[in-house]
Amino acid sequence: MSSIEETGEFNLIRRLTSISSSEITLPVIAGVGDDAAVYKTRESRVQVITTDTLIENYHFDFSFYRMEDVGYKAMAVNLSDIAAMNAHPVLATIAMGVPGSYSMEDMESLYRGIMGTASAHEVQIVGGDTTRSPVLALTITVVGEAAESDVVYRSGATPGDYIGVTGSVGEAALGLDILRKETATGGIGKDVRDVLTTRHLMPTPRLDIITEWAQKQLRPSAMIDISDGLASEVHHICTASGCGAVIWEDKLPISPEMHAAALGARSPVDYALHGGDDYELLFTASARVLEQMRPDSFTKIGRITPKDVLIRRPSGTLDLLRPAGHDHFRPSSPA
Amino acid sequence: MSSIEETGEFNLIRRLTSISSSEITLPVIAGVGDDAAVYKTRESRVQVITTDTLIENYHFDFSFYRMEDVGYKAMAVNLSDIAAMNAHPVLATIAMGVPGSYSMEDMESLYRGIMGTASAHEVQIVGGDTTRSPVLALTITVVGEAAESDVVYRSGATPGDYIGVTGSVGEAALGLDILRKETATGGIGKDVRDVLTTRHLMPTPRLDIITEWAQKQLRPSAMIDISDGLASEVHHICTASGCGAVIWEDKLPISPEMHAAALGARSPVDYALHGGDDYELLFTASARVLEQMRPDSFTKIGRITPKDVLIRRPSGTLDLLRPAGHDHFRPSSPA
Repeated sequence: MSSIEETGEFNLIRRLTSISSSEITLPVIAGVGDDAAVYKTRESRVQVITTDTLIENYHFDFSFYRMEDVGYKAMAVNLSDIAAMNAHPVLATIAMGVPGSYSMEDMESLYRGIMGTASAHEVQIVGGDTTRSPVLALTITVVGEAAESDVVYRSGATPGDYIGVTGSVGEAALGLDILRKETATGGIGKDVRDVLTTRHLMPTPRLDIITEWAQKQLRPSAMIDISDGLASEVHHICTASGCGAVIWEDKLPISPEMHAAALGARSPVDYALHGGDDYELLFTASARVLEQMRPDSFTKIGRITPKDVLIRRPSGTLDLLRPAGHDHFRPSSPA
Repeated sequence: MSSIEETGEFNLIRRLTSISSSEITLPVIAGVGDDAAVYKTRESRVQVITTDTLIENYHFDFSFYRMEDVGYKAMAVNLSDIAAMNAHPVLATIAMGVPGSYSMEDMESLYRGIMGTASAHEVQIVGGDTTRSPVLALTITVVGEAAESDVVYRSGATPGDYIGVTGSVGEAALGLDILRKETATGGIGKDVRDVLTTRHLMPTPRLDIITEWAQKQLRPSAMIDISDGLASEVHHICTASGCGAVIWEDKLPISPEMHAAALGARSPVDYALHGGDDYELLFTASARVLEQMRPDSFTKIGRITPKDVLIRRPSGTLDLLRPAGHDHFRPSSPA
């Protein structure tokens, strides 16, 4: 195996370019290989753009991530941001800071992870930059599109709207605790363990839901993806929308795997509210819009109110909902 | 001074957002503060996108870079890529990996460097991501626009075209050697030293030339910016265009400061051909186009030929021109 130091940057870029450039089609006019990529936008659409970085030891750990998983996840979290705007991804650029000791095979695995996720969602890789770095640092920027009136912001929630969430929440955080051996795993079967750890390693950007809503011409009033934990994201929507919310604890979508496996210090509800990395969509919608959505595609977990962000316990008690979630700068951060 | 670890990521983002969001105007519809930024493109334009990373100790060194210089340069090198497409920059996203020990003041200096360069070229910062990293890692993605027929690729050179370069070349590489104390500086005056080191620390993206050409409706046939060294970039154009070139050594634009200061092992010509980080524009154009360009805005340094990339020495001898330039993965890389 040749290391990148021996192969040199230009050879590396040529090898990676050959992986990426075969599938360039319109709206991309020119992809990798010039100073910038060139593409055409549709007149009837606005563009959305997002950028997210994964850095070794802060966002992932090679004791349980494979190179391909890192590539997969770096792309998936960016696609999730595009989904959270109710938009469709179109193209991406990739900036990689890579230790010089990496083999070409490592790089190709990483790139395959990125490309696999991109291809699955018809996203074209149009450019990038590869440089040396003391640890792996992967920054992906994704451009997407939507009709201007379809874009959903965090700021659109109105008192009376219901709060919905796709899929189930908390498993990714429990999966991480299992991967880090920070929770008791004695009683957990392999199947359950795999479900939970995969939720952390390979989150699914919920573009399937965006496509479904587009086909039905449905639009939530506000939306965000859950990267920092559900409670924290509810606060983001309420702050941006100038409103409050009540979350119904007994309605939180907690999976059977979570119930079977959350045997440590944290309860399933704690994982669901304050775990991170779910990459499900948290949204608000009027009753009229909500009832047109496929019932098994989401769970109704609360309601927007004029003020205060509260959680209704199963007993009926209302408590303030703490916004605590991820904080990538705090040493005790969960990921 | 509070460190980022104490302040927390969300406060940090809020502080930085307050710096960036005040100037959001159309075509940006929504900037920092949602899952993605939203913007509108003009029907008559295509979009160009580029991404470039600067990483501490590989691309810059805090023994002679100030925090603001790093921010400045990270933006400048991306704007240079947009210029190299004959396009105009519109907006940018910023991904920062930052050591947790940095103070808020460090971050603000860094951000001021980025914003200053962006504002000078009317580029709006629309989004970003801030995470922890063992060293400072700064990835900027810039989106620009141009009429489709105005875009200039590396691949458009034709035998008979002249080769031009803006400004002067090699000073940035000599400036770096001076900053690193890797060349004799005894005889160099402060003024000369400042000119050369500033060329390395604060390269100017040549958007002024792009604007000038647009006003005169002039378009080069091929173009690239000089990041890896002139010789290397000539090879890139020739490879992409399927042609050769002859560079006239005695026509290379070498500044008086370079002649005064290149006292070490490398000659002015060596710096001019194989130094990096100039961020001048290397372009090809027909005689007809070239003679309409302002004569003192560029230097005619050679001609495109059917094959072989050669350098014509002052004696008239033709030698093969080595493409050697930067290689960020080789340990002996100049920057």
